[in-house]
Amino acid sequence: MNNRRNFIKSTAVAGLGLSILPSGIVFSKEKETKVRLGFIGVGLRGQSHLELALKRTDTDVIAICDVQQRMVDTSLKMISDSGKPKPQVIMDGPYGYKKLLENKDIDAVIISTPWEWHTVMCIDAMNAKKYVGCEVITGMTVEECWQLVHTSERTGMPLMMLENVCYRRDVMAVLNMVRQNVFGEIVHLQGGYQHDLREVKFNDGKNAYGNGAEFGEKGFSEAQWRTQHSVYRNGDLYPTHGIGPVAMMIDINRGNRFTQLVSYSTKARGLHDHVVKMGGKDHPNAKINFKLGDVVTTMISTANEETILLQHDTNLPRPYSIGFRVQGTKGIWMDINKSIYIEGQSKKSHQWEDAKEWLDKYDHPLWKKYGNDASGAGHGGMDWFVLNAFIESVKRKTNTPQDVYDAVTWSAITPLSESSIQLGGESVEFPDFTQGKWMYRKNDFVRGDDY
Amino acid sequence: MNNRRNFIKSTAVAGLGLSILPSGIVFSKEKETKVRLGFIGVGLRGQSHLELALKRTDTDVIAICDVQQRMVDTSLKMISDSGKPKPQVIMDGPYGYKKLLENKDIDAVIISTPWEWHTVMCIDAMNAKKYVGCEVITGMTVEECWQLVHTSERTGMPLMMLENVCYRRDVMAVLNMVRQNVFGEIVHLQGGYQHDLREVKFNDGKNAYGNGAEFGEKGFSEAQWRTQHSVYRNGDLYPTHGIGPVAMMIDINRGNRFTQLVSYSTKARGLHDHVVKMGGKDHPNAKINFKLGDVVTTMISTANEETILLQHDTNLPRPYSIGFRVQGTKGIWMDINKSIYIEGQSKKSHQWEDAKEWLDKYDHPLWKKYGNDASGAGHGGMDWFVLNAFIESVKRKTNTPQDVYDAVTWSAITPLSESSIQLGGESVEFPDFTQGKWMYRKNDFVRGDDY
Repeated sequence: MNNRRNFIKSTAVAGLGLSILPSGIVFSKEKETKVRLGFIGVGLRGQSHLELALKRTDTDVIAICDVQQRMVDTSLKMISDSGKPKPQVIMDGPYGYKKLLENKDIDAVIISTPWEWHTVMCIDAMNAKKYVGCEVITGMTVEECWQLVHTSERTGMPLMMLENVCYRRDVMAVLNMVRQNVFGEIVHLQGGYQHDLREVKFNDGKNAYGNGAEFGEKGFSEAQWRTQHSVYRNGDLYPTHGIGPVAMMIDINRGNRFTQLVSYSTKARGLHDHVVKMGGKDHPNAKINFKLGDVVTTMISTANEETILLQHDTNLPRPYSIGFRVQGTKGIWMDINKSIYIEGQSKKSHQWEDAKEWLDKYDHPLWKKYGNDASGAGHGGMDWFVLNAFIESVKRKTNTPQDVYDAVTWSAITPLSESSIQLGGESVEFPDFTQGKWMYRKNDFVRGDDY
Repeated sequence: MNNRRNFIKSTAVAGLGLSILPSGIVFSKEKETKVRLGFIGVGLRGQSHLELALKRTDTDVIAICDVQQRMVDTSLKMISDSGKPKPQVIMDGPYGYKKLLENKDIDAVIISTPWEWHTVMCIDAMNAKKYVGCEVITGMTVEECWQLVHTSERTGMPLMMLENVCYRRDVMAVLNMVRQNVFGEIVHLQGGYQHDLREVKFNDGKNAYGNGAEFGEKGFSEAQWRTQHSVYRNGDLYPTHGIGPVAMMIDINRGNRFTQLVSYSTKARGLHDHVVKMGGKDHPNAKINFKLGDVVTTMISTANEETILLQHDTNLPRPYSIGFRVQGTKGIWMDINKSIYIEGQSKKSHQWEDAKEWLDKYDHPLWKKYGNDASGAGHGGMDWFVLNAFIESVKRKTNTPQDVYDAVTWSAITPLSESSIQLGGESVEFPDFTQGKWMYRKNDFVRGDDY
């Protein structure tokens, strides 16, 4: 316990690279230390992070907090099965997390709660001098995004949005290729979230996926809260998996920035049709006028004159696809057809070749090193990498590789796309959340071979 | 010759379905007649149409017109080789085509000239009471588009833009599927023109494709004129191959219409890089500041609340792809991965299946009937179908299946996208070239089994 206490000891902050980094980060005198974690939200996603944390030898789970007994019970069993000590358990309504934050033994929190709770929890956690690892969507409004930035800057506490797709094996290989100039100068990128979520948004209230037309109070897991956003909001509601990886490839917030955005939306048919299919046309939810268009398309421009195309498509029957495309002056990669073309190097002129050989050749050093550790972890291993990056940052008392500026820049696409659609397809300015620092910051994301 | 004269006899116009159709179409009393063609422009593209016309038994080539001896010589040899009579040859500078239009023996003209000549030639031809089949891009400005509409309406002469991709075999099978409700209600579509044209835009002045860094007066074939548009214009310069097919699938100008459009452009790198690669950094063309962004992305919204994504990408090394996507409430087809997914019918849930079986099953009746005739024709046979549709329309003295409203609606995307980019990414209103008739017109495109 002494180690733990020392870790959180309040120390004057040393420079972490540039002066623009969060300046209140605490330091430990010990070389070997464990990261002491608190889990805010142990629903299915929180449990997934919990499982990875329990497998590590460099973490302790100090406390867990949730509003549902079922989730707490499952988590406690996981912890007990792992042989780790039973944590503090907090079940005290939606604001019970504040008690968890009072626990001085906690260095860092993992937040896996509904989107609408992320900002307030992140802010309270940073104010309590915790490192924050928060599930995707940090800031539902531009105002929330600014609050997160200001709080991180004022408290000096890092906020990492746990955007896992930045660590997908092919994505990291392509990032590696971008940095080795395989694609030449980058010109255009694509990503998105094209995933039939109908059985996530609706279920029978008992199982997480499908079998019913219920959501909200009668739903279970994500259907309890995520679906509300499809009822009331029209925009790219889930941009971070698509934008994070491509943002890192073109140095967003690190020599580049998003300058403006425009979104168009289609009609909304898919969710209503699904309710009727699962619950019949007289089901109460069949009366709901879902506001979220079935396909929302967004274009983003950047200071360095690339364009990015983002597609949000979660209400219709379709196979899963992020829809990555990375295109430069020398070639192009797309994930939908698993293909690549590099001028002068691809076997046949004007013809796609299988990307596999290239992805293997440029496999990122971190994947070579940790691929085995990651194997079996969620989402093809990338969940291991994103949590590892967070934990290692806490251990080193350094800023996180994806930081508060990334978190809000990627998340802000949602409210900005809502504005654009509301305005009938006007382009809207993208705020510079770094406040000019983007011109000076360097892109250190996964440069090293540690995390 | 009597037949020919009778064909063009000026007769009172019978109703061609709705009163909104061109009203000056001439009628013949003969049942069997040949379509007497004049070719304005017999460069490489004109020669391709000429070759198809020469193979038909229902056409005569009355006259050809061009400004280049080389092209005329090649065409005359083709005609001579076919055993058909030598046509009138007009070489009298750029306005020589006016002489061709004076030839009363000509029923219809095929225009295959540089884009900037299309509008004036189409207008003069319609005024001369010729049917007009014009290569793609009819109207470089919105004003030109309106001129074409007004001239066609006033003269009653049909203008068909020879948009061949509407007749691509997979595209017609998918149209067939759309009409049989396989995809459910259509929600989102994609198309574009993603084709590395660097060796079309630059050559050595002798060969059509590549081997140099020349264009304009020093270039040959398309490089003589097409490249200028990349020097001076930034927009989706070549929208019709992508938009035509999807427009037909959602009844544009026939119960639906485009309402607005927005375009974003990337930096321009590809053409300059290509000049340097082929001609060295001291080549005079290396000083040119090409205005056309390498990738131009356009979103279009429709009255029926679909969205359409168009991509124009002609300056970078990449494999050819129109990039079709057709998505509805029941499923999705994409051509980039040659895949389809139809809910409840595809073999595995949430997984793509090879589109081939579906495309075969829904092969369009016209392809079943004429696939053999079309085989060997340009662009995989679709060139045969588009010319056939034009010729058959002339023979039947009816409106063309793609008409003046389609021609200008599809072509107007270029100037509208230029405006949108110039305005910094503003959405611009789409003109209703049908002037309200879109609410009443029916979609008869390839409904029959004749053309």
